[in-house]
Amino acid sequence: MTTTSPESAAAAAGETNDPIHIRRLELSDHERGFVALLSQLSTCPDLTASEFATRFAELAAQGDDHVILVAEDTSAPERRILATGCLFVERKFLRGGGKAGHVEDVVVDAAARGRGLGLRIVRRLVEIARDAGCYKVILDCTPELRAYYAKCGFVEKGVQMAVYF
Amino acid sequence: MTTTSPESAAAAAGETNDPIHIRRLELSDHERGFVALLSQLSTCPDLTASEFATRFAELAAQGDDHVILVAEDTSAPERRILATGCLFVERKFLRGGGKAGHVEDVVVDAAARGRGLGLRIVRRLVEIARDAGCYKVILDCTPELRAYYAKCGFVEKGVQMAVYF
Repeated sequence: MTTTSPESAAAAAGETNDPIHIRRLELSDHERGFVALLSQLSTCPDLTASEFATRFAELAAQGDDHVILVAEDTSAPERRILATGCLFVERKFLRGGGKAGHVEDVVVDAAARGRGLGLRIVRRLVEIARDAGCYKVILDCTPELRAYYAKCGFVEKGVQMAVYF
Repeated sequence: MTTTSPESAAAAAGETNDPIHIRRLELSDHERGFVALLSQLSTCPDLTASEFATRFAELAAQGDDHVILVAEDTSAPERRILATGCLFVERKFLRGGGKAGHVEDVVVDAAARGRGLGLRIVRRLVEIARDAGCYKVILDCTPELRAYYAKCGFVEKGVQMAVYF
């Protein structure tokens, strides 16, 4: 994927001064604030390195059916993760044995908002879903974020219902 | 699961006259109208036996992380599938490495509506999600179905956004 991504194309064209690197989650991102970033979205106690590695391996085993992208700030010594978003692919019987993409857990660090990092990640996730043959990509959000996701081509489709245990 | 399900409890209590059997999808359900039932929900061209078997195997490989329930009418000679619903479990990093249940593709045959089959399936899927340790179960629906899912304990949480390719 990397060789055909917009970032790679930009790099090939010499536009290499963008310090933000959008890439797939790596095991070492546990040390770059990935879990702390998620805590800005939802309840998210820290995970031990072992717990993180276990979940990372479970998700990596799903291959391209589960993609977590992160935006890394390569200009900072600690190379913090500033934004993330997830796509997973659901295989169905309907639509001729079709696939639906689900975008989840999109969050941008409070200090890095307004720079378009979330939009870059979501747009890339939509591209990945399309390239994987999904017939749609869906996500759930608060009503206030309708306009934000509209910038990535999303339109309102229904209501999200939930049961919390 | 079967030994502790409400259906089993009912059977143990002698209430065995219910011709509707709620169970997991089986390969042979391709011949019992499962795909035709899904076509009442969305675009759903028929699948060959081979295509159906391939997708069935892919989903079965996910074990208890992907459950499709069906309501089979055991009183009819052809034992048609009258309703179905799906649950898949998404593993996350947030919530302490938590799991979220997603309910998808709930449909009841037009001729069998009003008998509570969909509610029985959705309630069972919610039980399965809770037993699997999910911290929530979510689904997307049209606004008209809010009251229907409220009967299963769901409350409105947000809006669903979609991109169709």
